[in-house]
Amino acid sequence: DLPFVLIGGPCQIESRNHALEVAEELVGICRALDIPLIYKSSFDKANRTSGGAARGIGLAGGLAILAEVREKFGVPVLTDVHDASQCAPAAEAVDVLQIPAFLCRQTDLLLAAGETGAAINVKKGQFLAPWDMKNVAAKIASTGNERILLTERGASFGYNTLVTDFRALPEMALTGYPVVFDATHSVQQPGGQGTSSGGQRQYAPILARAALAVGCSAIFMETHPDPDNAPSDGPNMIPLSQMPAVLARLKAFDTLAKQASA
Amino acid sequence: DLPFVLIGGPCQIESRNHALEVAEELVGICRALDIPLIYKSSFDKANRTSGGAARGIGLAGGLAILAEVREKFGVPVLTDVHDASQCAPAAEAVDVLQIPAFLCRQTDLLLAAGETGAAINVKKGQFLAPWDMKNVAAKIASTGNERILLTERGASFGYNTLVTDFRALPEMALTGYPVVFDATHSVQQPGGQGTSSGGQRQYAPILARAALAVGCSAIFMETHPDPDNAPSDGPNMIPLSQMPAVLARLKAFDTLAKQASA
Amino acid sequence: DLPFVLIGGPCQIESRNHALEVAEELVGICRALDIPLIYKSSFDKANRTSGGAARGIGLAGGLAILAEVREKFGVPVLTDVHDASQCAPAAEAVDVLQIPAFLCRQTDLLLAAGETGAAINVKKGQFLAPWDMKNVAAKIASTGNERILLTERGASFGYNTLVTDFRALPEMALTGYPVVFDATHSVQQPGGQGTSSGGQRQYAPILARAALAVGCSAIFMETHPDPDNAPSDGPNMIPLSQMPAVLARLKAFDTLAKQASA
Amino acid sequence: DLPFVLIGGPCQIESRNHALEVAEELVGICRALDIPLIYKSSFDKANRTSGGAARGIGLAGGLAILAEVREKFGVPVLTDVHDASQCAPAAEAVDVLQIPAFLCRQTDLLLAAGETGAAINVKKGQFLAPWDMKNVAAKIASTGNERILLTERGASFGYNTLVTDFRALPEMALTGYPVVFDATHSVQQPGGQGTSSGGQRQYAPILARAALAVGCSAIFMETHPDPDNAPSDGPNMIPLSQMPAVLARLKAFDTLAKQASA
Repeated sequence: DLPFVLIGGPCQIESRNHALEVAEELVGICRALDIPLIYKSSFDKANRTSGGAARGIGLAGGLAILAEVREKFGVPVLTDVHDASQCAPAAEAVDVLQIPAFLCRQTDLLLAAGETGAAINVKKGQFLAPWDMKNVAAKIASTGNERILLTERGASFGYNTLVTDFRALPEMALTGYPVVFDATHSVQQPGGQGTSSGGQRQYAPILARAALAVGCSAIFMETHPDPDNAPSDGPNMIPLSQMPAVLARLKAFDTLAKQASA
Repeated sequence: DLPFVLIGGPCQIESRNHALEVAEELVGICRALDIPLIYKSSFDKANRTSGGAARGIGLAGGLAILAEVREKFGVPVLTDVHDASQCAPAAEAVDVLQIPAFLCRQTDLLLAAGETGAAINVKKGQFLAPWDMKNVAAKIASTGNERILLTERGASFGYNTLVTDFRALPEMALTGYPVVFDATHSVQQPGGQGTSSGGQRQYAPILARAALAVGCSAIFMETHPDPDNAPSDGPNMIPLSQMPAVLARLKAFDTLAKQASA
Repeated sequence: DLPFVLIGGPCQIESRNHALEVAEELVGICRALDIPLIYKSSFDKANRTSGGAARGIGLAGGLAILAEVREKFGVPVLTDVHDASQCAPAAEAVDVLQIPAFLCRQTDLLLAAGETGAAINVKKGQFLAPWDMKNVAAKIASTGNERILLTERGASFGYNTLVTDFRALPEMALTGYPVVFDATHSVQQPGGQGTSSGGQRQYAPILARAALAVGCSAIFMETHPDPDNAPSDGPNMIPLSQMPAVLARLKAFDTLAKQASA
Repeated sequence: DLPFVLIGGPCQIESRNHALEVAEELVGICRALDIPLIYKSSFDKANRTSGGAARGIGLAGGLAILAEVREKFGVPVLTDVHDASQCAPAAEAVDVLQIPAFLCRQTDLLLAAGETGAAINVKKGQFLAPWDMKNVAAKIASTGNERILLTERGASFGYNTLVTDFRALPEMALTGYPVVFDATHSVQQPGGQGTSSGGQRQYAPILARAALAVGCSAIFMETHPDPDNAPSDGPNMIPLSQMPAVLARLKAFDTLAKQASA
């Protein structure tokens, strides 16, 4: 069992400068802790609660910035795609294509992503049982691409609330694909603020510890220098200044979990 | 309060002949009962549980058949769209564009659909609270198109199960848009058969009665001459031969509900 | 199929005068509409959200008042019991013993209630599937008492929220026992006001209509002359002044449902 | 933060010999690992799924055996009580009275338990939000007894399924009372085998690790020499032979969690 990977970064690409500054700091934090990093950021927020909310920097501009982060800092990068036509261009700029949870059963998107040959991280839909993710993975694998990651990010639990069923991690691991725990979206409160989603940032680090104690391959955690003023996902992102302490604790739990299973 | 409309038809367009035969029979049933019909059928099943399941006849062929149904039988037709590029061509052939539940927060799709000027029926996501549908409707209305219908089709309730919260009908009606109850998808058991979804067909008519007793503008109900051999949604579609009796009872409940509220 | 029975009354016995006044008015309303009434009221609220909330008038005093209601107005009466020792005395004063939802799996209570020979109305636990109620009924039936009613009163749906799954009515009817729909507790929001439960009174009548459209034997509905000042369940009880109109509409739906199934 | 306590033992007292043998072995395991043990066993299974299932050895016989375990092995003992009259006699024989989840809002039982002065472990109802447990604790504390423990044992998640929301641990800890995680009941599948409950024993140890990583004061875990032939809770109890390895791993996670928070 390899040490856990961090999939992290700000929810969206706010500007070239913002992306490079956050990447530089996060790369430094992860190198100091010897935690492999995949830098994550979105070029488009395609399913905001409200139509008036900020969408993001767009495909072309965003991919150029992600490519620059990859080259400048020597880290793999990840971004999410929302329709089949985005997969090929995104796969030229990034290492991992991510399928959003709402879209995890859209066959055309899964096939187009798979066909790029890039690694594909699929988030489990809030409406899906963990054992149903094998069907999702099989759609991608039908393209001959087996570089698949499966992410738990919470299940619908009544209205405007998600719950994390940690049995989903070993259940999804039965597929043989690496399992990721998305700590910051699992504490989202979808639509919980009327025209935007709320969140419980304080619980993200402890749920990440629980996930590593249960056993998983990667932690997905969004971070921002100033979450309270971020254009999206502010209520659940971790302040960048807290990441060194948070990650150091996560590393200790991961090390213990992987020793213990040896 | 106008009498309820039926949005009905086979889950997918299986062939030109199949579509025309079902349409002819269903049009006859509805005319005999004086129930307005919107004929529904899909040209593509874009989010099947399993990648190996039948996808459907495709955009061009499917739209031509729907246009023929519309012209031949003089009934409005509805089909579902899965990405923004399908909206304009679909709106030339059909009267109502339908947004699938999984896609109800995809801003680009909602805007593209709205911009066609066609009526738009949005299904509420299984992961969404009824009060959050006002944000969805507002995205469409931002295009200047207010011809919007909102459909209840069940909420996630544990794994592989949906539950209908009938409070959602009056809650969504607060938007001022007509509310539809999807009786056959509300009894789906998503992924409930391992590589396909199960269903409880026997409960669809009684939930439709409940919806009309609560009060709604339309019932969505898929029907098929031989559901057990249908390529999709067989476990929850109503046999066409039962539709006259089912619809006659629904009409009586709708009439009573709308008298009573006068 | 017999016409529906109303199980109704104020949540708790506030005083002899209060009980007699409400009973007189409710008996009059039901006779005018030809709806059989079982008068319901509690002598003890044994599981309030908060320990500081009013408990009620107590066993001895309460049973005497219920016996007086029965004699004076010639209607059967119902009350709920909370431990085995209350069953025998309660069964002398009332016609129907009710098992609260939280207690629906307490074997001793079910057996003691069954052994009285009184009719037993068991509320389905918020944590129980409808098909599990056959095991509950079998505990009572093991005493030789088959006078059993099964009540749907909502299932847990996330936190502080209940949802009514109307498929539970036909599912529980498979036992052969009459099924009751509890309209006012199904719209409770347990613990929803911090130290007491909230409720959505406005939805109780429409859910009752839905239940009758689906098909059931009785409607349970609490009512009060002044719910906003009632010592318990105020947010979900129906004002007594609205009961004639509410019940008249329910009767029409019940009549239609039972004609239609003839 | 003190090291975690194990509340453990066989689900029910099967016989004096069985109780003493299991206690001897479990006491030895815990001493070797320096884990404080509270021995748990029930004298009555008062709410079995089915009326035909084994009930247990009874109050008088059971309490005598528990008192003997306490004296012989020098460990505190815990048992669950089901009505107010059992509290005083039970408190003479055991150190901790446990309130079952279904009964966590029964005011009389909470008060009678509190008045004994014994420590009281209340299991959170499957139907209750974690923030509602402060009202439950306040009922006990109103007797002047503040020796209260609060236990998470899963929340209703659709039918026949529980889910553990690990945010409940820090949420309940806001009360100031120690929080317990019940690992073996959290993986129950209530009523999941038709006339008895199922369980997913394999997930109990990993959920216990998650709980300790999140942070809690005690782990509740039932164990049995031969779970597959136990009279109750077999599908979720941990074989006694596996306890040394399971507990050793739990201790490492607890130590790390409590170091890290220092």
